[in-house]
Amino acid sequence: MGAPDITPDDLASGRAVRLAARARRLRDHTGGSAPDHVQANLMIVPRALAYDFLLYCQRNPKPCPLLAVADAGDPHLPALGSDLDIRTDVPRYRVWRHGELADEPTDISSLWRDDLVTFAIGCSFSFEQALITAGVPLRHLACGGNVAMFKTNIETAPAGVFHGPLVVSMRPLVPADAVRAVQITSRFPNVHGAPVHIGDPAALGIADLAHPDFGDPIDVRTGEVPVFWACGVTPQAAAMAARLEFCITHAPGCMLVTDLKNEQLASL
Amino acid sequence: MGAPDITPDDLASGRAVRLAARARRLRDHTGGSAPDHVQANLMIVPRALAYDFLLYCQRNPKPCPLLAVADAGDPHLPALGSDLDIRTDVPRYRVWRHGELADEPTDISSLWRDDLVTFAIGCSFSFEQALITAGVPLRHLACGGNVAMFKTNIETAPAGVFHGPLVVSMRPLVPADAVRAVQITSRFPNVHGAPVHIGDPAALGIADLAHPDFGDPIDVRTGEVPVFWACGVTPQAAAMAARLEFCITHAPGCMLVTDLKNEQLASL
Repeated sequence: MGAPDITPDDLASGRAVRLAARARRLRDHTGGSAPDHVQANLMIVPRALAYDFLLYCQRNPKPCPLLAVADAGDPHLPALGSDLDIRTDVPRYRVWRHGELADEPTDISSLWRDDLVTFAIGCSFSFEQALITAGVPLRHLACGGNVAMFKTNIETAPAGVFHGPLVVSMRPLVPADAVRAVQITSRFPNVHGAPVHIGDPAALGIADLAHPDFGDPIDVRTGEVPVFWACGVTPQAAAMAARLEFCITHAPGCMLVTDLKNEQLASL
Repeated sequence: MGAPDITPDDLASGRAVRLAARARRLRDHTGGSAPDHVQANLMIVPRALAYDFLLYCQRNPKPCPLLAVADAGDPHLPALGSDLDIRTDVPRYRVWRHGELADEPTDISSLWRDDLVTFAIGCSFSFEQALITAGVPLRHLACGGNVAMFKTNIETAPAGVFHGPLVVSMRPLVPADAVRAVQITSRFPNVHGAPVHIGDPAALGIADLAHPDFGDPIDVRTGEVPVFWACGVTPQAAAMAARLEFCITHAPGCMLVTDLKNEQLASL
């Protein structure tokens, strides 16, 4: 959890995690923090690009499930947290200029502008928690690794300047757990929902599961099938590919932790 | 079904209904036409208002479940139908200027502009079909009436110029059917999803069920409870209240009939 002075109390709720980030005690990964609470991917773009990005999310709800969109210039997201301030409450940000990583600050107050629009996008941490609760083992977590992610040969539906391949995450499961995983994640359309594919990686244009485009490789053992979900890296990759003049995201794994409970997102 | 020369073939599929509308053989209600196919509410606004409207739908997914949004100036919605042309394929339109009804044409080709953005929004016809299939009786259909709709005291989440009360539809059901109706409509978040309320109309600020704001009144009989769903009239009411300089909607009951099957929208 990064800095050594983080206490269990700092990780007990979404608000506690945000306050620890705000106080710069937490500057690192949020995985495992406030595990019952919804964590979100962050994308902040100027208003001039916000329509295209909002439309991109509407057209690609599996990789880009929107949890909330703030008004232009408003750093608050009351739907996701009381007193949430997007300028300070994420442990680490990435600032992008013309598609290039320009900085990785722990606070973006000095960069805030009246035309910036904040998008909070669902993250697989929520459905992973639901899978673990249901007894479906997730080996990448047991190993302490990041999930394996792959670019596919499936094009997302473009919107304005945003376009690019669907990025998927892969989890190896025995077939009975794969069925349970379809059932469980179908209940959570706001955090990527049901898998997009089970089985043959070649059908998605993935040549070698041992070489993910992002994250850590994981073996698919005898008796397991690879299960693929749409991944929140997709909108970030589309934004990078569009070489936006300016945008801000969270740093990998350093998510916005909200007041929502994962179970509040369940559709049935 | 309006004009006398409508044949059963004209109503056999979404495309057949659209072609009948395009040929002006069908100029009236689409309820009951191509019953397995998704029907949609229509909202067409200039690009200058489209961000606010898209954000309003994002923030209010139960009354405003978006099925598709076209690019500005594009009259086609390939996600909803092959060769669909939004300028001709709805039986009857309403043209609004400064919040006032200006015309009810059967074709809007002469009004089309390069900056118009088409929004297709889910409609309760789809979940009603699922309820009927499951044996849940819907008395307003048996009576040949329109569903009863009410403005509530619940404010929608505003977005730019769009704001206003949540409008709900009400169907009286015996309690066992109310439970089934929750289960069944939860599977269809893209067409309003689960009810927003069961029971006391006063809790929604509805003074008298005998006097709906839209549609036809229906008795709640002894042993029945009123079940309330978010209604697609909500975004139209918000658009009217905003007194938009210009927008186009479908005429009441004269929906866009798509190639999608209702069951394709089921989430599980």
